[in-house]
Amino acid sequence: MANRFCCERREASCAADATTPTRRGSGITGTPTQIAMILTCLLAGLTVYAAGSTESEIVSREFQSKNFANSKIGVNPLRKLLIYLPPGYTSSTKRYPVVYFFASPFDSSFRAIFDQMGARGVLDRAIAAGTIDRFIFVTVDMTTPLGCSWYVNSPATGNWEDFMVQELVPYIDANFRTLATRDSRGIAGHFMGGYGAIRLGMKYPQVFGSVYALHPVGTGNGVKILASLPNFELMENAKTLGDIQKDGSSTIFTSIFEAHIPDPNNPPLYIEFPAHRVGGRLTINAQVMDRLRSNFFLESLVGQYADNLKSLRGLKFDWARSDLNWDHVYSNQAFTHKLNEYGVPHEAEEYNGSLDREPNWGADGRVTTDMLPFFKRRLVF
Amino acid sequence: MANRFCCERREASCAADATTPTRRGSGITGTPTQIAMILTCLLAGLTVYAAGSTESEIVSREFQSKNFANSKIGVNPLRKLLIYLPPGYTSSTKRYPVVYFFASPFDSSFRAIFDQMGARGVLDRAIAAGTIDRFIFVTVDMTTPLGCSWYVNSPATGNWEDFMVQELVPYIDANFRTLATRDSRGIAGHFMGGYGAIRLGMKYPQVFGSVYALHPVGTGNGVKILASLPNFELMENAKTLGDIQKDGSSTIFTSIFEAHIPDPNNPPLYIEFPAHRVGGRLTINAQVMDRLRSNFFLESLVGQYADNLKSLRGLKFDWARSDLNWDHVYSNQAFTHKLNEYGVPHEAEEYNGSLDREPNWGADGRVTTDMLPFFKRRLVF
Amino acid sequence: MANRFCCERREASCAADATTPTRRGSGITGTPTQIAMILTCLLAGLTVYAAGSTESEIVSREFQSKNFANSKIGVNPLRKLLIYLPPGYTSSTKRYPVVYFFASPFDSSFRAIFDQMGARGVLDRAIAAGTIDRFIFVTVDMTTPLGCSWYVNSPATGNWEDFMVQELVPYIDANFRTLATRDSRGIAGHFMGGYGAIRLGMKYPQVFGSVYALHPVGTGNGVKILASLPNFELMENAKTLGDIQKDGSSTIFTSIFEAHIPDPNNPPLYIEFPAHRVGGRLTINAQVMDRLRSNFFLESLVGQYADNLKSLRGLKFDWARSDLNWDHVYSNQAFTHKLNEYGVPHEAEEYNGSLDREPNWGADGRVTTDMLPFFKRRLVF
Amino acid sequence: MANRFCCERREASCAADATTPTRRGSGITGTPTQIAMILTCLLAGLTVYAAGSTESEIVSREFQSKNFANSKIGVNPLRKLLIYLPPGYTSSTKRYPVVYFFASPFDSSFRAIFDQMGARGVLDRAIAAGTIDRFIFVTVDMTTPLGCSWYVNSPATGNWEDFMVQELVPYIDANFRTLATRDSRGIAGHFMGGYGAIRLGMKYPQVFGSVYALHPVGTGNGVKILASLPNFELMENAKTLGDIQKDGSSTIFTSIFEAHIPDPNNPPLYIEFPAHRVGGRLTINAQVMDRLRSNFFLESLVGQYADNLKSLRGLKFDWARSDLNWDHVYSNQAFTHKLNEYGVPHEAEEYNGSLDREPNWGADGRVTTDMLPFFKRRLVF
Repeated sequence: MANRFCCERREASCAADATTPTRRGSGITGTPTQIAMILTCLLAGLTVYAAGSTESEIVSREFQSKNFANSKIGVNPLRKLLIYLPPGYTSSTKRYPVVYFFASPFDSSFRAIFDQMGARGVLDRAIAAGTIDRFIFVTVDMTTPLGCSWYVNSPATGNWEDFMVQELVPYIDANFRTLATRDSRGIAGHFMGGYGAIRLGMKYPQVFGSVYALHPVGTGNGVKILASLPNFELMENAKTLGDIQKDGSSTIFTSIFEAHIPDPNNPPLYIEFPAHRVGGRLTINAQVMDRLRSNFFLESLVGQYADNLKSLRGLKFDWARSDLNWDHVYSNQAFTHKLNEYGVPHEAEEYNGSLDREPNWGADGRVTTDMLPFFKRRLVF
Repeated sequence: MANRFCCERREASCAADATTPTRRGSGITGTPTQIAMILTCLLAGLTVYAAGSTESEIVSREFQSKNFANSKIGVNPLRKLLIYLPPGYTSSTKRYPVVYFFASPFDSSFRAIFDQMGARGVLDRAIAAGTIDRFIFVTVDMTTPLGCSWYVNSPATGNWEDFMVQELVPYIDANFRTLATRDSRGIAGHFMGGYGAIRLGMKYPQVFGSVYALHPVGTGNGVKILASLPNFELMENAKTLGDIQKDGSSTIFTSIFEAHIPDPNNPPLYIEFPAHRVGGRLTINAQVMDRLRSNFFLESLVGQYADNLKSLRGLKFDWARSDLNWDHVYSNQAFTHKLNEYGVPHEAEEYNGSLDREPNWGADGRVTTDMLPFFKRRLVF
Repeated sequence: MANRFCCERREASCAADATTPTRRGSGITGTPTQIAMILTCLLAGLTVYAAGSTESEIVSREFQSKNFANSKIGVNPLRKLLIYLPPGYTSSTKRYPVVYFFASPFDSSFRAIFDQMGARGVLDRAIAAGTIDRFIFVTVDMTTPLGCSWYVNSPATGNWEDFMVQELVPYIDANFRTLATRDSRGIAGHFMGGYGAIRLGMKYPQVFGSVYALHPVGTGNGVKILASLPNFELMENAKTLGDIQKDGSSTIFTSIFEAHIPDPNNPPLYIEFPAHRVGGRLTINAQVMDRLRSNFFLESLVGQYADNLKSLRGLKFDWARSDLNWDHVYSNQAFTHKLNEYGVPHEAEEYNGSLDREPNWGADGRVTTDMLPFFKRRLVF
Repeated sequence: MANRFCCERREASCAADATTPTRRGSGITGTPTQIAMILTCLLAGLTVYAAGSTESEIVSREFQSKNFANSKIGVNPLRKLLIYLPPGYTSSTKRYPVVYFFASPFDSSFRAIFDQMGARGVLDRAIAAGTIDRFIFVTVDMTTPLGCSWYVNSPATGNWEDFMVQELVPYIDANFRTLATRDSRGIAGHFMGGYGAIRLGMKYPQVFGSVYALHPVGTGNGVKILASLPNFELMENAKTLGDIQKDGSSTIFTSIFEAHIPDPNNPPLYIEFPAHRVGGRLTINAQVMDRLRSNFFLESLVGQYADNLKSLRGLKFDWARSDLNWDHVYSNQAFTHKLNEYGVPHEAEEYNGSLDREPNWGADGRVTTDMLPFFKRRLVF
C-alpha cells in the first residue's frame, strides 16, 4: 500500500488516489497530485494560522506509514503531524534546520503544545528576540491505543523507530526546504517524548546531530521496585487490551512491556511478564526483568552506544526537582553520572519546579530559556 | 576622614588632596579635581584595555572606606574595584543598569576574571549576540587577610555590608551613568561571592533588585559535621593570626567564625569557639554552634527575610553537581527546598559539571548561558 | 474533678466513687477502693490474656486526665492505655524498667500492636531469647478526634505533654513496680508516635533517659512544599471540624496546625493559616510558616535542646528507605545530620523496607532486631 | 607441588615433608605428619592466646596454594589465616558453623582485627551474652603486593576465587569440626572485604549460605567519574609495578584493573587502560570502560546472579552515612535499589557514622549490634 499525504482538514479528498510513487528507495513516495495537495493543504493551513507570508505558519499533515502492518494492538497507520515554518519561509528560498519534537503522551494530543500551550507564540518570540535563528519545528503523533509507543520497533506495537528514521525524516526533507544533514537536524521531546529523543539520538546520531530532552523518563530505574507498580493480577486476568485501561499505572507499564519485552504470541497484551503477583505476594522473574532493564532503561544502553553519544554535536536534558514521582528525579541523576562515566559530553540540569506547573512552554519556560538557546548553539543554520 | 577616589596606576598623586566634597548626603564625596582625575584614570584605563570609544572599557579604581576602622585583623581600608563599561558608553549619554560581582576569594584576585578568565570578551560577545543588553559590570575586592569577609558587618573584620550598601553603590551611581534604582541594579557572585550576593540581596532588596549566585557556598549545612573540619587545636594554640594560615581549612573556618561568631576581645583570632578538640575528642558547644548556624547559613535566614526575598525581581542560583565537596551540593539542594517552603519564587539549577573545570567564564560557560540571560530578563534597561 | 482509675471492661462501676485522693502533690490520686479495683481489673486482664503467673500479662486501664479541659476540639479526658507486664511480674517483688510506646495514629487504635500485630508474642520471645531483659511496656492512646495530638500542649487540643509527664508517668510509677528513674525509663513510638518519643525525650530527659523512634515523621521538612499538601480552600471554607475530615491530607495538616500554630479564637479549626489558596494560586504567609517550622519540626528544636539531647543515655531512630513519601526519608536524613552538627550522639539507621510491609512487629521486625536490643543496652535493669 | 600446612611460628620445620596426600579429590591434601603438626601448632596457639580449654582460642595457620602459579605480579602462594575457635571447642566433639571474614586491605594486616581491634573479646562477649551461639571464625589474608585481590580469578593476579572455594573451605572443613554445609557457612568482610563477601556469596551460594558485608565498596559506581581518579599518566609511564605505588589512588585502581580488565601480555601493570590522559585531557575508551563496569561492579552482576542471590539464607550489608568518599554511600544506595528491582530479599542499613571512627569492632560496634545477630538468625547451629 502506498503512503498517502494529506492535510488534516481535507482528509476525504486526500485519501483518494494516492497511488503512484514518484520517489523510490526512501520508503517515502508522492505523486504530483499529492504534491499539489500538499500545497493546497499548506495554504489551507495558512488561512487558519497565519495572516501573511512574513509570519510563521503551522502546517498540518497526515502520513500513511508502512511500519505498523505488524502491530498486534491496532495502531492506526495514518500518522499525524504539524510543521511549524518560521516567519519568512514562504517568501524565501532559504533552507532551514529542523527540530523534531515528541510531546508527552499525557498531553491531550501531540498538537496540544500548539493548540493549548502557545508553542507558536513561544517559537515566534524566540526567533524575534534572537534566542534562536529561523528553523522548522515538527511535532508528530507517536501514540498507540495504550498511550506511549516508546519509540522502538516491537513485534507487539509496530516499528516506530523505522517510521521516524526511514519514513518521516525523508518525508520532511522531501517536502520542505530543510538543511538535510545531521548537523542541522535536532530531536527533542518532553517526558516520555524526551526518552524517545535521547533514544533515537543515541541510535541514529548520523540522522539527529543534536538532542534535547525535557524532563525525560525511563532513563533508569528509581528507588521504587519497578515490578511493584503495575497491577499484575489485573494484567494476567485481562481478556482484552481494554481491560487493562481501567488502571492508569497498569496501562503505562503494559505499554512499556509491549515495547521492551514483547511476546507477539501472547494475546491480549502481547507481553512477557517480569513478575507475578499471586495471593498478594510478588514474585519476580529475574531473567525477564533483566531483559526489560537492558532494553528499556537508557542508562543500560550507554555502554553500547557510547561512541554514538560522543559523536553528537550536543546532548542536553533537564528535569524538575519536585516531580512528585521521585524516581524520575533519581533516575535522571543516575543517568548523568553514567554518561560521565563513559566520557559522554553532555549538559544535564535539575531545575526548581514541578511537573504540574508545566514549566516548559510558559513565558520563562524551559523551551525559551534552555531548549531553544541549546539548539541555537548546536545546530548549523 | 574623607574618601579618596583614585585609579590604581596613579595612586600617589590621587591620594593627595581629596578634601572638598561636592555631593552631600550620600556618604560619598568627590572634588572637581577628583573628577578630573577620574577622567584621567578612565582614559588611562582605555589605553590599557580599549582601542576606541565603540569598544568596551575596563576602569580600575581604588576606594578609601570608612568601614574598616574597627577591624581587628588589619583590613586595608583602601578597597579596589574594576568597572566594565559597555561598548558605546563614552560616546553616549545613556544610563545603564549595573551588576555588582563578587569573585571567589579562591581566585588569585578579584581581578582574575578579567586578567585570566576572559570576562571582558565574554561580556562583549554576550552584548553583541543580544544575550544581554548593554550594562555596567563592577567587580570589587571583598577579601580580608584571611580570605573571605563573608560580606557582613563584624567587630572582628569590619563592616563589609555597610561598605557595599552605604559606600560603594552610591559611589558608582555618583561617578558613572547608572540607572540608579533597584530595578536596574543586580548583584552576583561566585562561590563565597555567590553567598555574598544572596546575603546582600536578601537584606537589601531595595538596593539590589535581582540576584544571581554561581555555585554559592554557605547556603546551609551539608552532611559532614561542620565542627570536624577546622583544626581546633591549631586554632586554640595560635599566637598570631598568621599561625592559623598554615592550614587551609582552618583559615577558612577562622574567617567564618570571625564574621559570624566574632569576639572582639579574644585575640589573636577574635572568635568564639563552637567546639573544642581535647586529646583527639571533639566537644561541641551547642549554644555557640546554634549562634553560628543562625548567623552564617543563608537557609537560617530565610524565615526572617522571606518578605524581602519575595520582593526581589529575580533570584537565581546554580551549582555544579560534581563539586568534590558534596556538602556544597547538598546544602544548595536544601536551600532551594527551604525557599520553596517559604513561598519565595526563584530559579535553582544543578548542572553537570565540577568546580575544577571552571564552568563559568568559558565559551559556553554559565555566565553566558545562564547569568547574563537572567539579568536580561530581570533588569530594567 | 478527681482522676478515675479503671480497667476498660468495668467502666460503669469504676467511674463511680473515685473521689478521695490518697496521694498528693503528684497530680495523680487514688483511693483504697480504686486500688482494689485496679487489682480486680488486673486479674480481669489476666483472665483474658494470660494463663498463669509465669506468663506475661496485658493490663488494660483508663485514666481521667485534667489536661484536656481547655481543648477546643472535643478531646475525651478519659484516656486509655495497655500495660504489658513481663513473665514473672506477679510472682516476684522485683522492680522493672518501663518503656512507653506511642503507636502510629494510622493504626486502627493504640491497641492494634497487641490486638493485630502480635506485640505480646514479640516481647515474650525477645525476653526468652535474651534480646532484652524483663521490663514493663506501656502503650497509650494519644489521639484526638482529628487523629494525632502531636504530643504537645496546645490551646486548641489540650495539654498532651503535661498529660504524659505530669499524669501518666507518675500514675504508672504509683501503680506498678517500676524502677522509677530516668535511667530505667524509655520512650518509643512509630511514625507520628516516633515524633512524640523524640520530642518528649528532647524536652524531658530527666523523665525519659532513652529514646527510640521507629520511622518518625515531622523530624524536618522534605523536598515538597509543606503548604502545597493540605487543601486550603476546603480548610478555609470549613463550617465544622467534620468538614475537614473528607480529605485525609487536610485532616493531618489541620492536626499539625492545631498543635503547632493554634489559634483558640478561630473556630472551627482553631488554627492560624500558613498559606492561602485563592483562585488556584498559593500564597504563603512567611511569618506563620516560620512559626510553624520553628515549633513543629524536630530539627528546628535541636539547637534549643541540644544539651538535653546530649544528656540522654541513648537516642536512636530508624526509617524505611522505600517509604513512598520520599519527604519522610529526606527529613530523617537531614535530622541525623543536624544532630551530628550539634554534637548529639545518636544512632540513625535507614533500612531496606517500605511502610506497607509493616516491618516493625514481624518475626525479624525492627522491634526485635533493633528497638529491644537498644533498650537492653541503654536501660538500667 | 603439594600444599603445606603449618602454623606461623614453626615455619621451617613445617615446610619440610608435606608430600603424601591423605584426602583426594578436594585439591587439599595432608599427611599424618602434617596433622600432628597441626595439633602442635594449635597447642602453640593456645599458649599464646588462651589460658584453658574453656576459653576461646586463636589458631594461626599458613597454607600453600596452587592457585597463584600464574600470577604475574608476584603473589606469595603461602597464604596466612587465623582461626577463632569458640569456648569449649577443644573439650567437646560438637561441630560448629563457620564464618569466613575478609578484613579491609587498608588494615595493617588481615590479623589486625585480632591484634589491634579486640576481635577475640568481641566474639567472646557476644557468645557469652547470647548475641550469637558458638561458632568458628576464620580470617584470611587475601592481599596482593598492590593491596586488594578483589577476590576474583585473573590472569594478572591469580585465582583468588578458586583459592577460597576449592582450597580454603575444604581445608577448614577437613581440619576443624565444622558443620560443613552452606546452611552453616557464612561469609563476611569489611570495605573491599565486604565486596569480596558479597561477590563470593553471589557466585557460590551452595558454598556460602549467608553473607554480611560491613561497608562494602565496589558495589556500583558513585557520582564521580571513575576514570578521573587514577593518575593515568603515571600508570602509562610506569616501568615497574613499584612505580605505581607512589600514588595511593593509582595503586588501588591498578589493583582493580588487574582484577577486572587484566591483560597478561601488557607488563608491568598487566592491565587494559579504560582511559588515557594526554596533555591534561582525559579520553575514555568506552569499550574497555564497559567491560570494567560489567566485571567489577556488583550491581552489574545482579541480573546474572539474581537466582543465586535469591537462594541465599540471608544477605545483609551496611554502610556509614558519613564516609567522606560520598561515592561509597551513593553506590551502596544504588545497590540495594537494584537488588530490590530483581526481587532479591536482603537487608541494607545506612547508619550514622564515619569510617575513621572504626565503628565495627567497638563495644557497640556493628559486629556486635548487627553482624553477629544476623548470623545467629541465618546460620544453622
